Amino acid sequence: MKLNDLINQNCEWLKGTGPNSNIVISSRVRLARNLRYIPFAHRANKKQKEDLLKKIKEAVDTTNYTKGALFLSLADLSNLDKQFLIERHLISKEHALHSDSKAVIISDQEILSIMVNEEDHLRIQIMQSGFNLDEAWRIGSQIDEEFGKKLEYAFSQEWGYLTACPTNAGTGLRASVMLHLPALVVTKQINKVLQAITKLSLTARGFYGEGTEASGNFFQISNQVTLGHSEEDILDNIERIIKQILGHEQNARQALFEQEGAIIKDRIWRAYATLQNAHIISSRESVDLLSSVRLGIDIGLLKGLDIKTINRIFILIQPAHLQKLEGKALSAQERDVKRAEMIRRELGGK
Amino acid sequence: MKLNDLINQNCEWLKGTGPNSNIVISSRVRLARNLRYIPFAHRANKKQKEDLLKKIKEAVDTTNYTKGALFLSLADLSNLDKQFLIERHLISKEHALHSDSKAVIISDQEILSIMVNEEDHLRIQIMQSGFNLDEAWRIGSQIDEEFGKKLEYAFSQEWGYLTACPTNAGTGLRASVMLHLPALVVTKQINKVLQAITKLSLTARGFYGEGTEASGNFFQISNQVTLGHSEEDILDNIERIIKQILGHEQNARQALFEQEGAIIKDRIWRAYATLQNAHIISSRESVDLLSSVRLGIDIGLLKGLDIKTINRIFILIQPAHLQKLEGKALSAQERDVKRAEMIRRELGGK
Repeated sequence: MKLNDLINQNCEWLKGTGPNSNIVISSRVRLARNLRYIPFAHRANKKQKEDLLKKIKEAVDTTNYTKGALFLSLADLSNLDKQFLIERHLISKEHALHSDSKAVIISDQEILSIMVNEEDHLRIQIMQSGFNLDEAWRIGSQIDEEFGKKLEYAFSQEWGYLTACPTNAGTGLRASVMLHLPALVVTKQINKVLQAITKLSLTARGFYGEGTEASGNFFQISNQVTLGHSEEDILDNIERIIKQILGHEQNARQALFEQEGAIIKDRIWRAYATLQNAHIISSRESVDLLSSVRLGIDIGLLKGLDIKTINRIFILIQPAHLQKLEGKALSAQERDVKRAEMIRRELGGK
Repeated sequence: MKLNDLINQNCEWLKGTGPNSNIVISSRVRLARNLRYIPFAHRANKKQKEDLLKKIKEAVDTTNYTKGALFLSLADLSNLDKQFLIERHLISKEHALHSDSKAVIISDQEILSIMVNEEDHLRIQIMQSGFNLDEAWRIGSQIDEEFGKKLEYAFSQEWGYLTACPTNAGTGLRASVMLHLPALVVTKQINKVLQAITKLSLTARGFYGEGTEASGNFFQISNQVTLGHSEEDILDNIERIIKQILGHEQNARQALFEQEGAIIKDRIWRAYATLQNAHIISSRESVDLLSSVRLGIDIGLLKGLDIKTINRIFILIQPAHLQKLEGKALSAQERDVKRAEMIRRELGGK
């Protein structure tokens, strides 16, 4: 597998399957790990970081799950390729910034990705389609265990896993779920929900990652506290709260459709028609319209169209993806035209 | 023919045919006439107005062109029917206000309509599709001549035809042309054009008549001066100016499509798709979108769709028309739903 193959492969978290996939796009588990006797990445020198890279490569090559995975040295990648990996949620913006002695490992279907020498030595990410933190955790802890046998983790009996930033110490676990909450947004209940989850030690971000606003009614919800609770407790807590949010969204969708069926229908059909017919479209507008179409599929209004196609478009509308598809650099204006073209093609428009 | 048949008949001015029909919707000639020895309508008593009505009826029944025309006494009509006639440009708002001793005569295909006891005793209107003031004037002057043999017009050698308001005296002629000028609007040349025509003794109004703003890029342009020039001079003047405007609009369309083809294409396809898929739509939005679709037909982008259908929808989106179609009174909200339904049906949408 090569980097350029990623754009055409069916990656796990865009499958549109799994529990509650009408509301939950994907579930993600991330583990922060560091190696003993090697300084944290921001304190390590080049040699130390290169040594670390070698160790990780060995571990990856000898571990069943990661054997044969794509191993990319960030120094070898163009800016476009790095942007492309960011857009696929495979690396962070920070990871792309200074590429020296950094790498990313990507498994088949992008279920697993590991950033090496980001803030921590290892950032292990497991993605699953739908509401499936359990499976993500199962895979993650298995890989973690195997790696633990080969790499000596920095671990303290008192503090747990040691991390570059204390907010990640303890379990090093961040669990997050990407939700599509159009009905809570339109009925203006979303702010109450977001306020409530903050009190419950969770945090919400936008679809396109840290520092981005929630757009198109997509919210990525994750735990803030990693220390002082077991992994199981952290997962239980977020799962319990997400289940409540799912219930609220489901009720809001039903009430909305009963009380304002015509308005919803109007919005969904207009959105679908616009996506099928636009010749110039911004990513912001695309996200908003795709959100309506996603709702239309869920409530059975748009038949013969699957969530997977919509998820695929969500990823492809991004700048680096459009440029990879076209095989050349595109200005913002050119992207708006190519984006519309791609969406029409994907949705069988004119 | 009955009033209720009008809604389904192919009326002349919506045919979408005739010269320059890509820019000119319709041409209209209106003659103001009064009868000698009978006070102007606002000074006449009931008996005098009823006598007048009788005289007019006799003239209509014995004139070739008007024989068999629909003769409607406004007192017999419901408010909805009167609104319906206003929307079809067959009577004025003023004519509908106080219905006593008022009538309207409507010929086949609505080419001719005559208001009796509006501001003047007779307001004779002839409509033609496209840019065809000559034909409208030919028909109008013929009817005028025949009526003149049977009815003694109030006419002064010095002032010409006498009218209730001096601004109509002389010829009593108002010629107007309904233009669709999207390219002049979008390229912001329209204000210069409108300022220029005002200096040339013409005036511009909106699609839906006097006192309405120009909307959806439609402008009704007519002469202001009726006195001191012959009918031929008045018609020559407006025709000459309209031809210039047509040239400007044509050039602007071409330049626009060459320079901003993608933007125009985007707007046209979105408009068409929205009309085919909306489930709630205001008349204002409909007019704007229909304007884009009309342009799309002219530049050959939207194939298999004719101007006649678009013109038909222009008329049907109005409140009284929607209520006549449904056969019952509708609230504004209900109309927005029924309007969307009708447009989808007309355009073969979902």
